Amino acid sequence: MNWEKIDRLAKEWVMEAGKSIRSSFDKTLNIQTKSNPKDLVTDMDKEIEQFFIRKIRGIFPEHRILGEEGFGDEFENLHGIVWLIDPIDGTMNFIHQQRNFAISVGVYENGIGKIGLVYDVAHDELYHAFRGKGAFMNEKQLPTLKETTVKESIIGLNATWVMENRRIDHNLLIPLVREALGTRSYGTATLEMVYVATGRMDAYLSMRLSPWDYAAGAVIVEELGGKVTNLRGETLNYLSMDSLLVAKPGLHQTILKDYLKDGKW
Amino acid sequence: MNWEKIDRLAKEWVMEAGKSIRSSFDKTLNIQTKSNPKDLVTDMDKEIEQFFIRKIRGIFPEHRILGEEGFGDEFENLHGIVWLIDPIDGTMNFIHQQRNFAISVGVYENGIGKIGLVYDVAHDELYHAFRGKGAFMNEKQLPTLKETTVKESIIGLNATWVMENRRIDHNLLIPLVREALGTRSYGTATLEMVYVATGRMDAYLSMRLSPWDYAAGAVIVEELGGKVTNLRGETLNYLSMDSLLVAKPGLHQTILKDYLKDGKW
Repeated sequence: MNWEKIDRLAKEWVMEAGKSIRSSFDKTLNIQTKSNPKDLVTDMDKEIEQFFIRKIRGIFPEHRILGEEGFGDEFENLHGIVWLIDPIDGTMNFIHQQRNFAISVGVYENGIGKIGLVYDVAHDELYHAFRGKGAFMNEKQLPTLKETTVKESIIGLNATWVMENRRIDHNLLIPLVREALGTRSYGTATLEMVYVATGRMDAYLSMRLSPWDYAAGAVIVEELGGKVTNLRGETLNYLSMDSLLVAKPGLHQTILKDYLKDGKW
Repeated sequence: MNWEKIDRLAKEWVMEAGKSIRSSFDKTLNIQTKSNPKDLVTDMDKEIEQFFIRKIRGIFPEHRILGEEGFGDEFENLHGIVWLIDPIDGTMNFIHQQRNFAISVGVYENGIGKIGLVYDVAHDELYHAFRGKGAFMNEKQLPTLKETTVKESIIGLNATWVMENRRIDHNLLIPLVREALGTRSYGTATLEMVYVATGRMDAYLSMRLSPWDYAAGAVIVEELGGKVTNLRGETLNYLSMDSLLVAKPGLHQTILKDYLKDGKW
């Protein structure tokens, strides 16, 4: 398998997709709503996903594709090479803010992440990692993540999770928020993972995300020594929705043991 | 009073201060901690405030200055012309992220906001308003804010306020978060106010802020028809710490009446 070619083309396609998103900023976006009004989708999401699918099928017909918009394949295992694509992660931000959204592309081989690409389109920042070869923001190599403690940490989590909810006992998260240096919420999982990779935040957690939300970010964070699991401390399976805990080493274990109490979230 | 001169110089100084902040990004920041470990301060905060004070005193010796770092004046009224300055709002973001922070400068005359300048340094975006003459992002005039409803709204608030706390009955804010389209938290009041001004968010609220946090943002938001009060619905007095509710018209009244129940927060 020519991984250098896959990596080069994946980057090319991500940059090209980003360019067409930027050129749409001044057009009126034709917004539709999915079943849930919070789950906005624009024509742009669909166009970008279809763009990736066309490109991948044209050059790598044997690869499989899992995309948020559902134009890819359906499957029950991760055998072979699989592309996990979120054409626009943070669609609500894309519509309201024209910033704080990203293109997220992960390429996995037999369930192991090889390539992670997160393109912060508004900032023209491509975060990229190839397993074993380091992680970068554009041309700049990112330093390895160091251990940290809760009281020195900025933690990304949405206010929803410290209110009574049906996914987690919010009483476990309240002490974490109280004891941390601060919390933030940006409304885009893939960029919040990149924020952990770059040290802008120290941890990020969410209760219910899809494989395309975290496939690319996981490769980048893990390449830097950060930890990526679900909130039960298990390896993500990339086939179903799951909870997510991304954190610097040390902090990850502390959150699981001392705050989440090794619960089944 | 030559308000055009004040406006022109204020903008010049803000841009010059922003330039020196940007040039510091690659230097190691010498971080001190104030009494509260969450309240980080860098040498840069102090330098920028002193820079403004030198400039203002040199040209407008009769003006008074209220600044976060305490190098300005102390006073118990807003008579005459008063500059309210936060040299770096979002210091924690400045340190950890080198983005999501801003310089905030408001100029008031007898307690009435005349000039509001918020400079998003990392994005090189100067948000500015002169009372009665419109509000702008760089050269681009910002459109007037339209009415909206809670269920269509993205609301800026920190997770802290939906947990039990000593400032507000969190049970009042929980339904607001549940019924809104989404919540965000960026950790910088002045930029979150600007996010309301630009429609990136629809409302922002916080329980305890200082006059220099909201003096500039208030001029910009009000110039666009947005509402700025404390959480009791009262006009801010710009002399003491207070709670803050910034929102599009209609939404502001709905949050006060239907969620905060006209309480004394």
